Parts: sequence; C-alpha cells; structure tokens
Amino acid sequence: MRVPLSVALLLALSAPAQADTVARVASPDGTLQVELDLNGEGRLAYRVARKGQPLLADSRLGFILRNDRQLLRGFKLDTQATRGFDETWEQPWGERRYVRNHYNELRASFVEGDRDHRRMDVVFRVFDDGIGFRYELPRQPRLDEVQIEEELTEFAIAQPATAWWLPAFEWNREEYLYNRTPLAEVGVAQTPITLRTGDGTHLSIHEAALVDYAGMNLAKGGDGRLRALLTPGSPAKVVRHTPFATPWRTIQVADRAGGLVESNLILNLNEPNKLGDVSWFKPSKYVGVWWSLHLDQQTWGTGPKHGATTENTKRYIDFAAKYGFRGVLVEGWNVGWDGDWFANGWNFDFSKPTPDYDIAGLAAYAKAMGVHLIGHHETACAVSHYERQMDAAFALFAQLGIDAVKTGYVCDAGQIERQDVAGGPVLREWHEGQFMSNHHLRVLQAAAKHHVAINSHEPIKDTGLRRTYPNWVSREGARGQEFNAWGAPPNPPEHEPNLVFTRMLAGPMDFTPGVVSLKGRGGQPIQNTLARQLADYVVLYSPIHMAADLPEHYAQHMDAFQFIVDVPTDWQDTRVVNGEVGDYATIARKDRNSADWYVGSVTDENARRITIPLGFLDAKTRYTAQIYRDGEGADWKSNPFAFVREERTVQRGDTLEFALGSGGGVAIRFVPKR
Amino acid sequence: MRVPLSVALLLALSAPAQADTVARVASPDGTLQVELDLNGEGRLAYRVARKGQPLLADSRLGFILRNDRQLLRGFKLDTQATRGFDETWEQPWGERRYVRNHYNELRASFVEGDRDHRRMDVVFRVFDDGIGFRYELPRQPRLDEVQIEEELTEFAIAQPATAWWLPAFEWNREEYLYNRTPLAEVGVAQTPITLRTGDGTHLSIHEAALVDYAGMNLAKGGDGRLRALLTPGSPAKVVRHTPFATPWRTIQVADRAGGLVESNLILNLNEPNKLGDVSWFKPSKYVGVWWSLHLDQQTWGTGPKHGATTENTKRYIDFAAKYGFRGVLVEGWNVGWDGDWFANGWNFDFSKPTPDYDIAGLAAYAKAMGVHLIGHHETACAVSHYERQMDAAFALFAQLGIDAVKTGYVCDAGQIERQDVAGGPVLREWHEGQFMSNHHLRVLQAAAKHHVAINSHEPIKDTGLRRTYPNWVSREGARGQEFNAWGAPPNPPEHEPNLVFTRMLAGPMDFTPGVVSLKGRGGQPIQNTLARQLADYVVLYSPIHMAADLPEHYAQHMDAFQFIVDVPTDWQDTRVVNGEVGDYATIARKDRNSADWYVGSVTDENARRITIPLGFLDAKTRYTAQIYRDGEGADWKSNPFAFVREERTVQRGDTLEFALGSGGGVAIRFVPKR
Repeated sequence: MRVPLSVALLLALSAPAQADTVARVASPDGTLQVELDLNGEGRLAYRVARKGQPLLADSRLGFILRNDRQLLRGFKLDTQATRGFDETWEQPWGERRYVRNHYNELRASFVEGDRDHRRMDVVFRVFDDGIGFRYELPRQPRLDEVQIEEELTEFAIAQPATAWWLPAFEWNREEYLYNRTPLAEVGVAQTPITLRTGDGTHLSIHEAALVDYAGMNLAKGGDGRLRALLTPGSPAKVVRHTPFATPWRTIQVADRAGGLVESNLILNLNEPNKLGDVSWFKPSKYVGVWWSLHLDQQTWGTGPKHGATTENTKRYIDFAAKYGFRGVLVEGWNVGWDGDWFANGWNFDFSKPTPDYDIAGLAAYAKAMGVHLIGHHETACAVSHYERQMDAAFALFAQLGIDAVKTGYVCDAGQIERQDVAGGPVLREWHEGQFMSNHHLRVLQAAAKHHVAINSHEPIKDTGLRRTYPNWVSREGARGQEFNAWGAPPNPPEHEPNLVFTRMLAGPMDFTPGVVSLKGRGGQPIQNTLARQLADYVVLYSPIHMAADLPEHYAQHMDAFQFIVDVPTDWQDTRVVNGEVGDYATIARKDRNSADWYVGSVTDENARRITIPLGFLDAKTRYTAQIYRDGEGADWKSNPFAFVREERTVQRGDTLEFALGSGGGVAIRFVPKR
Repeated sequence: MRVPLSVALLLALSAPAQADTVARVASPDGTLQVELDLNGEGRLAYRVARKGQPLLADSRLGFILRNDRQLLRGFKLDTQATRGFDETWEQPWGERRYVRNHYNELRASFVEGDRDHRRMDVVFRVFDDGIGFRYELPRQPRLDEVQIEEELTEFAIAQPATAWWLPAFEWNREEYLYNRTPLAEVGVAQTPITLRTGDGTHLSIHEAALVDYAGMNLAKGGDGRLRALLTPGSPAKVVRHTPFATPWRTIQVADRAGGLVESNLILNLNEPNKLGDVSWFKPSKYVGVWWSLHLDQQTWGTGPKHGATTENTKRYIDFAAKYGFRGVLVEGWNVGWDGDWFANGWNFDFSKPTPDYDIAGLAAYAKAMGVHLIGHHETACAVSHYERQMDAAFALFAQLGIDAVKTGYVCDAGQIERQDVAGGPVLREWHEGQFMSNHHLRVLQAAAKHHVAINSHEPIKDTGLRRTYPNWVSREGARGQEFNAWGAPPNPPEHEPNLVFTRMLAGPMDFTPGVVSLKGRGGQPIQNTLARQLADYVVLYSPIHMAADLPEHYAQHMDAFQFIVDVPTDWQDTRVVNGEVGDYATIARKDRNSADWYVGSVTDENARRITIPLGFLDAKTRYTAQIYRDGEGADWKSNPFAFVREERTVQRGDTLEFALGSGGGVAIRFVPKR
C-alpha cells in the first residue's frame, strides 16, 4: 500500500509532478540555469538547463539515514542567498599556472515543517562550464551523529546519451577498460563518467573534495536516471557529526570534448592550499626498478633476480644522472616481499631495507649525482600496519633525501585491512570508502611533515585535493602501462583517448609512459607506435612522469628518447586542440619554466589525419618544431617502429598536419628561435 | 597495479579463462547441464547449458566478508557427491495439490589450499525446469561469526535477452510498473526478474527460502552480466555463524512463458511444513472495509467518515454471509490511526479497538452468521513496537475467532524502525534486509501458535516459505488494485500479464480484484473491462482473494458478481494454456473441492483473439461452460462494460475462442453436467 490521499498531503498524489521553484542560480555567462524545486510533499529536487534546453530533469536530493528518519520530504525553504565570486589563484605546480575561479553561488537552507524541524542546506556553485553542489548539515539539536545509509542524490540526464564508464564494485576496482554504451546500458558505474548527448553536449559527473566521506558511485534506476550509490562501510556508509559538508557533486559541461579537459571546476571546488610553501616538491621525471619487474626479468623479492640491489640501483642512478632525470624509483627495496606478500601485507617493514640494498649508501651516491631515490610503500592493503610505521618511515626517507614516495594498495576490492587496535580484530574496508578517504589524508599529512610527496597506486579516486594538499602529486587509479607488460588483453589503442576525457578529468595520472621497445612480457606487442609512447607525455598530465623502459631499450631508440629527455612536467597552460572521447586527442601545453610549447596527439585503432592549428603559439615568435611522428604506413600491429624525427620552422597561424597510424601518435617540442 | 606474474599463479594471468571443470550435474532429463570450474587462481564458477547450448556462461561464486578475507580464490575441490531425488508431496493448500520434487543434486566441498584452509560448500539441485544452488559454510575453526559484506554470485546470461524487471532501492520499494528493456539496460533490479532470450527460452532469476539473510538484488556489471547486490544491513549485510546455508539462488527455465508459472522449483527448494496440521486455515474469499478507504469515501481514522464502525462492519458481515464470503477485513479498527499515523507507527495499539468498534460484539455476530473477521495490523514500520505487542494481539484475535491477519509495513524504502531495547536507540532497516527476513518469521511463528494466518503487505519478497510455514498465506509485494483507486497512473492493461510471469512466480498475491464498478477515486477509470476483473481471480493465484468493491457496486453487476461468488481459491491443479510475458495469459485451474474447472484470460492494451483448447478438462465429461466475457467492441477506454454472460456445452477436445478487448479478459467456470 502506498500512503493514501487521506493521510499524505493532497498535492503529493494527485499531481506528484507539481512543484514550486523556490530558488534559482545561473552561471556568470547565463548559459547554465539551476533551479531548486520543492514538490507538494516538500521533497527537494534540482534541475539544470543549458542555453534554454533541459540538461538535467528534476533530480532528487536527500539521504537515507540509519540512526534517524530519512531526510527526503516535508521540507520548506527557510532562507536563501546568492553571491558571485571571481578570483584567480596560482597553482604551485600543475597543468596551468593561473586558475580562474568564477561562479555564482546559491546557498539554500531547508527545514522540516513538522516534527523535529531538522535542517538541511544545499549549496550550488554554477560556473560557465559546469556545476558543483553539496549538502551541509548544520549543527542542530536533533542531529548530532549522522549515520548515512545512502545518499539519494540523482542525476536525471534529460537526453539520451552515449556514456563512457567503468563498472563499480568489480574485483579489480578501477583497472578495467572503459565501456562505451548508451547511457541506458549503464549498470553501476564509478566516477568520472563522461556523457555525450545527441546534440553533442559533453558532460562529466564526478565529485570534488572527497574528505571524510564514502566515494560516490552511480546506479542506473528504473527510469534511466543515475543516482548515487555510496561505497559501503560499517556501521553505515558515512558516519559524521554535524555540522558537516559532503563532497561536491560535480557536473562538468562543454560543447566540445576538450572543454571538459580544460575546465578547472574540480580544483576550484577544493579548499585552498593548507600546506603553505611546497617548493620542496619538484615536478620532474624519473626512471627506476619497475618495468623489469613487470617483465618478470627481475623480482620484487630477494634472490638471484632481485631488482632492488645496490648495484642495480646504482646503474639507474647513473642513467638518471646522465640524462637529467631527477628520480629513481626502486620497488622491492624493503623487507616483506619474500613469500606471499600479496596475501600478507603485515610482513612489510617500511624502514628496513633488504640486506642487498644499501639504502644509505645509495642515497649518498644519488645525492652526489644530483639524483633522488624515490621511495616505495606497498601496503598490500595492510593499512593499519602501514599507518603504525609511516611516521618513522617518512622520517627515515627525509633523512636520506628521499622526498617522494609511491604508495600502493594492491588487493581486490573490499579487501583493505583495518585494525583499529593493535592485536584487535581486523575488519575489511573498500578502497573508496570513508575509512580510506581518511587514511589517505593521514598519509599525506604525515608525509608533508617531512616534505615528502605522495604518488598513490590503487588509490582512492582523485577529487582535486592536490589543491589543498599539494604534496598529493599523482596517482594511478586506472589501467596504466603495466597492463602492457602482462595484461590480457593489454591496453587497446583507444585507451588513452578514453582516459583523457574520463580519468584525466579527475587529476594527474602516473601512467608511466615511454616504453619505446613496444613490447611486454614474452614479446607481447604494446598496441602503440613508437611516436605514441612519446605523445603520452603530453596527452596525459602528471607532475611526475616516468621514463619507464629499461635503459638498454632507450639506447636502441635514442632518437625517440630525446623527446622524453626534453619534455617537462610542469605547465604554464594547457589547451585541447581537438579530440573526441575514445577516438583521439591533441593537447598543447606550455612549459612553465621556458618559452617552449609541447604538443601530443594520440589516436585509437583508426589511422587518421590530425590537423593542428598553431594558434596557441606565442605571437611574434618563430619556433623550431621538433617533430616525432609516425612514419609512412605506421601501424601498431604491422609497423609500430615506422617513425620519423624531423624539424620545421613554424609560427602562430600555421597549421601542421599529420597522418597517425593505428594506435599512433605525434609528439612535438616547439623551441623559440633565438 | 595488479598482482604480477611472479607472485600469482602462472595460469591466472597468462590464461585467465583457462579453467578446469571439477564437477558436473545434469537435470533428470539431461537437458540442463551444470558445470563447476576452478580456474588457475582457484576461483570457483558455475556454468549452465541447456540442450547443448550455453545458457549461463562462467559465473563466479564467492563472498566479500567484513571480518575476514574474501572467499573467492585459492580453492581446491575436496569432495563431491551427487544423488538423485524424486518425491511427490502434498500441499495443504495451493495452486496444485500434488507437487513432484525431482532433481539431481551435486554437493561439492571446497577448501582453500593455503593459509587457513577455510571451507566453502556449494550445493546445486538441477530440475528439468531449472536450477537452484546455495552456499553452505560448514562449522570450522577459522570461521565462526561470518559478516557478509557482499555476495559475489554472478548470473552471466549467455545470450542477449529481453528483461522484465523492477528497479531495486527505489523509495516505493516494489510498487512500480515493470520495465521491459533489453537485458543490457537493466540497472539494479529486484527479483524475480524474467528474461527471454533470442531463441525464445524463458528464464527467471529469484531465490528460495530467504531465511535469516538479506534479500538479493541484481546489479548489471560492466560486461553485461548480472551479479548479486544484497540488501544493506549493519554491521554487515548478513551476519551469521557457521554452520549456515544461504538461500537458494534459483534460475527457472522454460521453452514457453507458461512453463515458468507451472514450475514448482521455488516450493521444492523450501523445507517441508514445520507447523503440522494447518487445516484450521481455510482458503476462502473475503470482503471488507478497504476499498471505501482508498476511494476516500471513508477514513482509517476516527471521525464522521470512520470506516471501521460497528454498524458499517455489520453491513459487511451481512453481505459476506449472504453471498458465502468467509472473511470480513476491517482496516482502521484500532487505536493509532488518528493524526499522522504514516509518520508514527509507535502510536498503534494492536489490542485496543476504537470506541466506535465493538470488536467482541462483532466477532460474536460474525460467528453467528458463519463469517470471520479478518484482523489488520498496520505497523507503519514501527516493527519493534509491533513485535512487543503481537503475542497479546494474536491471542486476542484467536479468542475472537479472528484466524487471519493482514499485516502492513507502510513506509519508504529503508525506513523500517528497529529498537532492540525498549527506550533504546532506533535504527533504520530495509524491508528486504536480514533483520526483516527474521522479523517476518517471528510474526509467522507467533501467529501460528494461535492458529492465525498471515497476509503481509509491503512485505519481504516471497521465496516459497509458505511450504515451511503454511500460515504465510499471501502477501502484496507489487502494485495491487489499490493503485486503481488513486495511482498516478493506475495499473495499465499489461500489468497482470506482467505479474503472471514475474511477481507471481514467487508466490500468491493478495491483489484484491473484483472492482466491478471499474472506477477509482473521482471516477478515474480502471484500465480494465468488466470481464477482466473476473478473470483476475483465476489468472492471479491467492488462497485468499478479496471481493474488493463496495457491496452497492456489486448490486449493480449481479451477473458478473456471480462468478466472484462461485470462484474457489484452492486448487487441485493449474495449467497455463497460453501467454506471453507482458502481453496476455490464459490459465486453467481445477477446483480442489469439486470437479469444476476454471479459466481466466487477460490481455494487455491490445485487443486480441484468444484460443483456448480444452485439453485440460477431465476425459469423458461434458461441462457447462459458464462464460463471462468481453462483449462486442469492448475496450477499457471506450466501452469497458461491454460484457456477455453466456453458457455452452463443451468437453475435452473442444476449443473455445474469444475476442478480448483492450484491457480485457474472459472468465469461465466449467461445471460437469450430471
């Protein structure tokens, strides 16, 4: 039985669609209009129109709680306020130096009309290129501890759309290839999810500032609308105390795919830098003991093929010093890798090197060579065990001049091990749950004390917290190059064209490009051309990029390697020249520390001609374009090493054209002529 | 990073699809073949073929636990055993009297090869018309309390299919119209979910014997496969102690839609009757104070329009006695309906009638008239409050000759109120969670002590427990006739043709048919013809069926009413003559207590000719077919009362043909000629 008319408010059942708009806010340029409705049952919904057309239909807001009635109906608008905001701020490092934060904000306070008069606020910030909204539950007598069972937020996309998405709750977490399906065929998805409606409007749904809260997934409901499905936790998905705010739910919008990439919406919704001076973090490139492990030529564990030995590491330090790479990552350096580490992260000792790894000696050697070791903290999901050691571990590293650490959480979905009391029960958590959202920030804060930067693998999703904690410099959080070592299948050619418009909207990725040998384990082909591996350095943003291949392989491709040596990782500006989700992408970036520009372009399995208008180049400047491109007939399958290195003189106003092969690319360095 | 080769088993990554079949079992007739595989990682999957064609591709099995590592990989087969079973048992009441339970069973015991050697058993029962499987976790040193975070069961339907489904986790629970979409467009669904593959094979996925466990929903994953998504709970979705068994996950299969309806698979997987003699429960029909409330002509609460008054109830008792209806349901009889009952079920008193309801006097009056009052326990989800009163409440009813009670759990999804300690904190639960699976059985057991039958509204899904507790006689669990009073929209013509092949596979439904006035509130048309309302009595099975309309409306349709007076509710046998999911259904049933047969046929919004071959009639018998059918030009929109009552003499071998109008039907009673 539903609640019959004689009990519920009359309007509720006779005309459930009838609702009153109680508040509105528009983007600065007026193209995005957000309206908040209360229907006859006092149920709150938001709706978005763009250029006068419905973008999101009425989408519900609210919560199911465990320790109280749901926050869903019976609301009245208490107060509302709008304000404008326009500020430009500077990133200490990033894909662009200056970021404009320009929005109109609506803050609306709702109160239940009956019973306990509970309060719920919603805040909408509307930018020209999207919206962000969050809930704020004020301090109030009736709600102290709030146990959230589910967040009832909906995203009712008003038009049919194509969706690029990853499934949620799968065992291998976010390490899947992207699905491209009609929106109607989405099941349960992670964010970012990117959509393109019939008229070409691009949207991407995600969140910003995921702090002390469960990560949001999206489930498709009965009538096609997407709704939040928070990552599980116990005793509830989220436990907070009022007053608190949820993360921002974000909907980026653009006419062209590139507009999604160029947006700063996610960063702008994050809190400003809390760490102060972070000039100790140096965007840079690194090499290291890593690819050899994934090729199974060396081992993480000790033994005759141990990769993390003093001698092997010295080789990498020498290589790094010779070619100007700042960092040398070494995996397998510490005690705990022998035996079944995957099943027992509790064996790891984060301060104790293996007997064949003279960490102090190597640190000193590196220093003398102008290179820094990069630390590695693989937890194998024994998270509480790691937390107990991490302060000492970071302190040790800081002493040794190790100012960046790659962390890891290798285990299946739902297998994070939490032990609140040493010796107490061990409970399981999810990589994207509230517990892990807090763990990661504890790690960042511990690392920051010692001026250590963090690069998280098998992480929680990026939600722009690098603005607040600029030592959170990169992360994995998708299928990276390692899948080209042993993946079945390896990454297909469309993978980076997918990533650019999905994963990369969330933040930097430690993709580890640059495997110029184009071969994985047992000679398995990487589905790229040589030029493509170079283009990835520009197309995929990270302040730290690896030159992932073995030194001996670079020796065989010195022409290509030069680009990797040259390409910077810190940018003054970024433009998407062209691209379509999952098909191709061409990105131009200006070096922050010189007047150089860089361009990378990648294509999927389709060979295609790419046109690059050079309108981004500085005016009145002639450049030498150092071009690294697919050669004639280049094709990842049949002719991956067809490669041409050439130079041309160009200036703004010129247009370059290239024929990219299947799985191909082009990488260009533009050096101003003196 | 995924676990690289050097750590995981070699086979896992180089050939993840490579698996060894470790056990097999087939249906008695050999058409269904089930195989269990262990892949190189020791991960268990099952696969189903039918008539040599893949029905389900490799579908994973396992659990994510909260208080221990997941049960997913590293298994070895320890022992296996198969056995046949063939027994015919008798239902004390039901859609057929004798039920054959004929299957082959495989019991396979798995043990982890390393670490703690935890054990997990799976049991498959394969019938000619489907399979059921469940997990059994034996008592073992390593697993005592088991907190299940998620069940990892998959259903990888091997072919594209059409799906008829309800979305899960929506606020109005199961009271939605069915979606009909490609399987690829399923988001998160409830069960039963019914599928039809391209070659016409029908499947339905559900569960049997949902005891002390969370109800299973289905989520569509990235590659199209369905997987379990249990209903939430705290501290985990399910908390049990070894040894325990899960509910049976069921997959019914049939060449024709009717085969799904005729199957006894769900009942057969349930435990036999625990209550002993239940002859005190009488399958019967009832009338009562109900439709008038939904028409808003009377009220649940006291006042000038109170429906549950002594005088009004006497009217219904007289009406029932006159026409041979055993029961009179009265809603609003007890204290607690005044004010905002929907928001506060804690006000209900389940033993205290309102001042204007002389329950003792009415009970005596009813007894004298050969009629029984039917009790009503609306909880408004204050479940713990109800549990504290229910023993006394059932005892009171038993004293008064009230031997059936309709219970109710009206509130939004996730709003069940649980209070383990009087005066203690109130926590929220889901209608389909583990807590409620146990609550319902506590209610049944309390009722059974007093020889009271239970008809649950806003219930947990039916999983065949009426076999074990034959006082669980019916339930709602879908959109019923009340939506024709005030639904926006009301039930469309395809609703019962959907229900027959989805909801009705789970068990009986108290649909409350028989609104011969064909009008809801304010004269809103019901989207049926008159004959259709009669056909529903046969097409939808329930041992208790209401003649739902007001007596004064029946007085205006005495010709049609005669069928309602005659139709029984306890059957010797049931056959589906024809039908297609969501389109039409024709069902024949033989009365258990006479030699009569009954037929009902319903159609969706399409008018259609229905052909009814009378092969089900007893041999060598001539029957008078008392036919209640759509008249010429009958159409729910324009001509709903076009209705013909006629008689024909027929026998087995004859065929009847009818033209059903849009939203129409035909109902027939076959009386053997003496």
